[in-house]
Amino acid sequence: MQKPKVVLAYSGGLDTSVILKWLVQKGYDVIAYVGNVGQNEDFEEIRQKALTTGASKVYVEDLREEFVTDFIFPAIQGNALYEGRYLLGTSLARPVIAKKQIEIAYQEGAEYVAHGATGKGNDQVRFELTYYALNPQIKVISPWKTREFLDQFQGRTDLLNYAEKMGIPVKATLKKPYSEDENLMHISHEAGILEDPMFRPAEDLFTLTVSPKNAPDQETIVEIEFKDGIPVKVTNQNDGTVKDSPLELFLYLNKLGGENGIGRMDMVENRYVGIKSRGVYETPGATILREAHLDLEGIAMDKEVMHLRDMLMPKFAELIYNGYWFSPEMDFLLSAIRKAQEAIDGTVMLSLYKGNVLSVGRKSPTSLYNKDLSSMDIEGGFKQEDSRGFININAVRLKAHNVVLREKMPYLWRKEEK
Amino acid sequence: MQKPKVVLAYSGGLDTSVILKWLVQKGYDVIAYVGNVGQNEDFEEIRQKALTTGASKVYVEDLREEFVTDFIFPAIQGNALYEGRYLLGTSLARPVIAKKQIEIAYQEGAEYVAHGATGKGNDQVRFELTYYALNPQIKVISPWKTREFLDQFQGRTDLLNYAEKMGIPVKATLKKPYSEDENLMHISHEAGILEDPMFRPAEDLFTLTVSPKNAPDQETIVEIEFKDGIPVKVTNQNDGTVKDSPLELFLYLNKLGGENGIGRMDMVENRYVGIKSRGVYETPGATILREAHLDLEGIAMDKEVMHLRDMLMPKFAELIYNGYWFSPEMDFLLSAIRKAQEAIDGTVMLSLYKGNVLSVGRKSPTSLYNKDLSSMDIEGGFKQEDSRGFININAVRLKAHNVVLREKMPYLWRKEEK
Amino acid sequence: MQKPKVVLAYSGGLDTSVILKWLVQKGYDVIAYVGNVGQNEDFEEIRQKALTTGASKVYVEDLREEFVTDFIFPAIQGNALYEGRYLLGTSLARPVIAKKQIEIAYQEGAEYVAHGATGKGNDQVRFELTYYALNPQIKVISPWKTREFLDQFQGRTDLLNYAEKMGIPVKATLKKPYSEDENLMHISHEAGILEDPMFRPAEDLFTLTVSPKNAPDQETIVEIEFKDGIPVKVTNQNDGTVKDSPLELFLYLNKLGGENGIGRMDMVENRYVGIKSRGVYETPGATILREAHLDLEGIAMDKEVMHLRDMLMPKFAELIYNGYWFSPEMDFLLSAIRKAQEAIDGTVMLSLYKGNVLSVGRKSPTSLYNKDLSSMDIEGGFKQEDSRGFININAVRLKAHNVVLREKMPYLWRKEEK
Amino acid sequence: MQKPKVVLAYSGGLDTSVILKWLVQKGYDVIAYVGNVGQNEDFEEIRQKALTTGASKVYVEDLREEFVTDFIFPAIQGNALYEGRYLLGTSLARPVIAKKQIEIAYQEGAEYVAHGATGKGNDQVRFELTYYALNPQIKVISPWKTREFLDQFQGRTDLLNYAEKMGIPVKATLKKPYSEDENLMHISHEAGILEDPMFRPAEDLFTLTVSPKNAPDQETIVEIEFKDGIPVKVTNQNDGTVKDSPLELFLYLNKLGGENGIGRMDMVENRYVGIKSRGVYETPGATILREAHLDLEGIAMDKEVMHLRDMLMPKFAELIYNGYWFSPEMDFLLSAIRKAQEAIDGTVMLSLYKGNVLSVGRKSPTSLYNKDLSSMDIEGGFKQEDSRGFININAVRLKAHNVVLREKMPYLWRKEEK
Repeated sequence: MQKPKVVLAYSGGLDTSVILKWLVQKGYDVIAYVGNVGQNEDFEEIRQKALTTGASKVYVEDLREEFVTDFIFPAIQGNALYEGRYLLGTSLARPVIAKKQIEIAYQEGAEYVAHGATGKGNDQVRFELTYYALNPQIKVISPWKTREFLDQFQGRTDLLNYAEKMGIPVKATLKKPYSEDENLMHISHEAGILEDPMFRPAEDLFTLTVSPKNAPDQETIVEIEFKDGIPVKVTNQNDGTVKDSPLELFLYLNKLGGENGIGRMDMVENRYVGIKSRGVYETPGATILREAHLDLEGIAMDKEVMHLRDMLMPKFAELIYNGYWFSPEMDFLLSAIRKAQEAIDGTVMLSLYKGNVLSVGRKSPTSLYNKDLSSMDIEGGFKQEDSRGFININAVRLKAHNVVLREKMPYLWRKEEK
Repeated sequence: MQKPKVVLAYSGGLDTSVILKWLVQKGYDVIAYVGNVGQNEDFEEIRQKALTTGASKVYVEDLREEFVTDFIFPAIQGNALYEGRYLLGTSLARPVIAKKQIEIAYQEGAEYVAHGATGKGNDQVRFELTYYALNPQIKVISPWKTREFLDQFQGRTDLLNYAEKMGIPVKATLKKPYSEDENLMHISHEAGILEDPMFRPAEDLFTLTVSPKNAPDQETIVEIEFKDGIPVKVTNQNDGTVKDSPLELFLYLNKLGGENGIGRMDMVENRYVGIKSRGVYETPGATILREAHLDLEGIAMDKEVMHLRDMLMPKFAELIYNGYWFSPEMDFLLSAIRKAQEAIDGTVMLSLYKGNVLSVGRKSPTSLYNKDLSSMDIEGGFKQEDSRGFININAVRLKAHNVVLREKMPYLWRKEEK
Repeated sequence: MQKPKVVLAYSGGLDTSVILKWLVQKGYDVIAYVGNVGQNEDFEEIRQKALTTGASKVYVEDLREEFVTDFIFPAIQGNALYEGRYLLGTSLARPVIAKKQIEIAYQEGAEYVAHGATGKGNDQVRFELTYYALNPQIKVISPWKTREFLDQFQGRTDLLNYAEKMGIPVKATLKKPYSEDENLMHISHEAGILEDPMFRPAEDLFTLTVSPKNAPDQETIVEIEFKDGIPVKVTNQNDGTVKDSPLELFLYLNKLGGENGIGRMDMVENRYVGIKSRGVYETPGATILREAHLDLEGIAMDKEVMHLRDMLMPKFAELIYNGYWFSPEMDFLLSAIRKAQEAIDGTVMLSLYKGNVLSVGRKSPTSLYNKDLSSMDIEGGFKQEDSRGFININAVRLKAHNVVLREKMPYLWRKEEK
Repeated sequence: MQKPKVVLAYSGGLDTSVILKWLVQKGYDVIAYVGNVGQNEDFEEIRQKALTTGASKVYVEDLREEFVTDFIFPAIQGNALYEGRYLLGTSLARPVIAKKQIEIAYQEGAEYVAHGATGKGNDQVRFELTYYALNPQIKVISPWKTREFLDQFQGRTDLLNYAEKMGIPVKATLKKPYSEDENLMHISHEAGILEDPMFRPAEDLFTLTVSPKNAPDQETIVEIEFKDGIPVKVTNQNDGTVKDSPLELFLYLNKLGGENGIGRMDMVENRYVGIKSRGVYETPGATILREAHLDLEGIAMDKEVMHLRDMLMPKFAELIYNGYWFSPEMDFLLSAIRKAQEAIDGTVMLSLYKGNVLSVGRKSPTSLYNKDLSSMDIEGGFKQEDSRGFININAVRLKAHNVVLREKMPYLWRKEEK
């Protein structure tokens, strides 16, 4: 009889290596799958380790381009920001990884997929919702919420002992006193010593960004050009460098952001599973892109579209965070968001300097800005007298409210009227 | 017969001085009213100028404390931010000025109020909606949308000539090539040379903030304590300075922010009257406060309350921007916002450095953060297996969607499925 | 010199006849335009009257099909309902009329368009916003907010006298003591005796619907089939009648609704210009369609899409009501709404009886309803134990809230805890 | 050693009787608790049955007044309606029942509570979320999602056999071929034969309402008076009956509604657990109240408050439906809703007739309706010319949009421009 096949999302780290071996021992034919979303790894080494540890086959997939064009850029189009601050670097990487995993399972005729995300976090949800959305028949093995596995591995020591016993190579390097998740959009640091929300991490925690203190003393001026709300070209005005393909320009913005100490965030956020969690993030390139995109919308987007979209943005970010990238409600929102981006064309000039990213100029072929209309010095075009009617009409209901309710609800309720 | 009385919002500048005289000439008894919201002015000099120019009486009112406690702090509680970036420094000052003006008109038995805001801007709306909301019977004189006045004064030269003819003293100082509005929350710069959205203003435009380049090379660590979402104490950890009254602590944050180059913003925004406008803002203290407040909410606010509030924030900011501070819909929103702030207590530690304001630690007596629950290393409390049910249930409709609609709407519609 | 051309939206009634003549007298070349949106009129007679009154040319345009497919059906797709009750019959007719008017002006090279809507109502806004949105250069003549016209015609008597003097034929029939607006979607009754909100109109006011009291004693069973949220077929189960073209099926639903006393509404609503107004409406067919569409969505629409859409529906209805059919924010909303309708296919069976319209059965090829999943009697498919995890996870933050805030905010705040 | 105490929500039916006995057999000291929310039962008989079946103690609690004042009326204030149609009769009853259960557990020092809701429905969630929200330490026994219980009782036959074996009295009456939930707000019918969404139930299913066909041939005119959005008095104009206490007036409206065939609804809805479910509801009194309240808001509520509230209503209804009555986000919403109801005072006159409930008149001491302002015949008060400015200003951005984007996005995109 054939062994049941499982496609395991494999990172090469201790956890997924133990899981790989454990699955093999449980009688599965394990296909290891490594999604390259830009993490700083030696993928050949990981491939070898997977084979050594018992994988029957290994897929190493370069998902970087797709990650940038199909996930990061749409998020930028919608100005996605979770709880006012988090740019969703991990959240956006999960569906691209899980989607490819489902595709491999389909190709391989595997009935199962497995992942090593913990049972308390967001990533398990993001992985599994994507699996189920793309293949409702798929069966998911999630060891970190399997009683048997939890009982066998109650701490890092159990994992290390098992690894030693099974001959799984463990890196000699000291484990960091917190965990990290890295991809080309960001790196997150959490858990361990960071669990004390008053603990400020030392400078050596940061890996994608230099400290603003160590950034250059001169600002970098960069121009970013957008078409339909998508960045299409980045020009460094200091040295003339130009990048105009999606992956390249994004990596270049990461480089510029990192060098200038841009994109650090330290916050407590709400996980989907109802608990709060402290995270420290570095998101250099996307921080620059978001500011540029927001600035361009200022000149090229209709006011009412913007205000309506702004009320939906928190929902958009929540859906990404919670793992609903592939969902009908996301399609619903993306339809509107894309419509709103149809003429967000133009170029924003930004100053990058020691952690700061400031828009300092913008121009657009579809600009709705009209110097003459807004100018206080020019009378033409806009009739000042129209403003009188505009105000009077808008005041009608405020007056009525006051007249009718003055006695029941003295209007200046925040302070007593004299 | 008695002359009709008008209370004029008077700044001491050329425009309102001309308006004052023009009203006197039109036969009004003009009471000049100067609202001190923290602008950098010699109020005694303004008082004298008003009398010289023909005012029968002058009120100089210190509104600073009220501005901070009744307008700025509620805006901070609601994280108000217009179009993703503008902290509403001018918008918040208008209703406090207009409210006092209506109170003076009431005291003086004046039938009229007047202001010098232009007919193309937001301030006219904010002034007049406040007037009408607080006194539906009030009559408003708004020269910059009165045909007779517009015809008489078609440019700055007409104003200067009139001033000279009427003996109105005009400051010899060179007029800046853009206009400014200053109060204790911010200064805005707009119009004139700034009307070209690609023009980057020179460093000398900025008055409340030093350039990040000229800010100290060492970070300033400041702790801000909140009670019910309201800042109650600021402690400078570098030198031990403590401030704990509303106005004082706000001014102190302005000082710290300004010294560290914090709070600059250059953007194109949408005016209420439908036109786009470019503004350059400096908002040092409120920029720090907003970040601190947001950070504290991270640890002390319920997730669902936060997400719901976040969807309403753009509306809250829009109402402030458009001049609806005194309106039933603002009361509606504020009721919810205040409820949500009832336990936003605690302290946030921030690093101020060359334009950056970063939260680096936070603690709260009402913290909803629980290290043990979120810890990946601790199994107790939160049952990992519960996550399985949580995910499965949340996946039910995603699976159904896929099964039913795969043929009609291939689910991976953004890229074709293999 | 050529006379300036104006295209006047002409109804054949007293007001627009007077306006026609007044425009001719003012020196305009008046092109009368009559939009047939289903009002019960003799269009040939109107054409003659226009020519008699001085029009140089008359356009009578049948807009009924376009009105149904491009305005009413999209509104049905989005479940548009203003202030919880009004189905927007007049609001939807205005943009289709104004759009054709702009097209005629373009064809005729006319610089001006004119309409006879009053200066206090919604229709003036709807007409003019559509004009400006479709042709920003168009010039609008709106006599009912032109001082000269208002001074000349201060009441109905002035209009009648002018008509007599100018030889404009006036119908001998008694004017109704309220005004009406009719099209194929609805008839509205307002003003006059209806201005007293406590006055209940007599039965003879109603023209499109019989009184429920006079409706048949037997119910009519009708089946409505939808494709992508659009009605494509109506079948009367009582007599086998079938209608399957947009205009025909809509008119047939009007007939069925009218005969069964369906679609009456008596309400006070908020006009865009800030005043409240009382209206009595009859909307037979659209009332049936809305119920059917809502019911079909119950079985075919994803929950989260529905709930998100439901929060946007009031905005959608407001935009229609206020005259923003042609606006970027409407495009934004419609993009999402259309996406959400992509698989709203199926058939709803309704009972029509003496004013009642009740869904009594529904089926759909894209149904997301699964008898086996929801059945209490079948254990398979849906794992009950998963619900435990689902509830536990959802309770995490509720527990935390209670634990942390019990002292500060005793949780059972609506009643004291024992 | 003392037995662990459990407070069981007991209905007297087969399921909870079996559960009671099963818990006793498992070694629990079972306290039976019967919440009277208006269901049509002989509570003394239920009390006896509980004791006979093994309960050590029985609480029969009359929750009707609290249900009406603290749950139904706030829902009416907020116009709560789930998915456009369901008035939430069951959803609102669950928290009042669960709250008392937690209070009894507290009084009795019981560590456990138990309920008999199924593992696929909404009620389990509503009960348990309320339990946990009010007492985070409580332990919940939910047999219908306990493996042991599920294995033992796989169908109704197993329950009946167990009942027979244990001497639990079972009513001889034939079980209905669907299940019901009744309280003073409504009765719901679901499951069984109703699981086929095309099956139309026969007339004998309905118990709270007569068929419209059998309702009186004469309309009943009823006046409902509200104070702060809460009904305070009901007057039957046909016979002069007056009711003015909360419970009494609500029951009286139920009577009137039931007699007139009002409040039936047949729909497919989305359960919280992600599956769709078909329900048939009868909600006579609340259907009348909702219409009356909506109508009164028409005349007494500010437009912008209403429109903002309307966008939040679906969320309000969703929270009620999902079981989050006691939650911080509900407090957030209720704060705003209550503010909005502060002056919703007045009287609505309604016609009840064969299933129809129509508002036909309304008056309010806090009415914002002003006949003179809205009248087309009166020029004063509202200046028509102001409308010109209002429209022009609102058209500014529509014009800009057209001018700028005509080429990129031909504006009449729904139909090609000529």
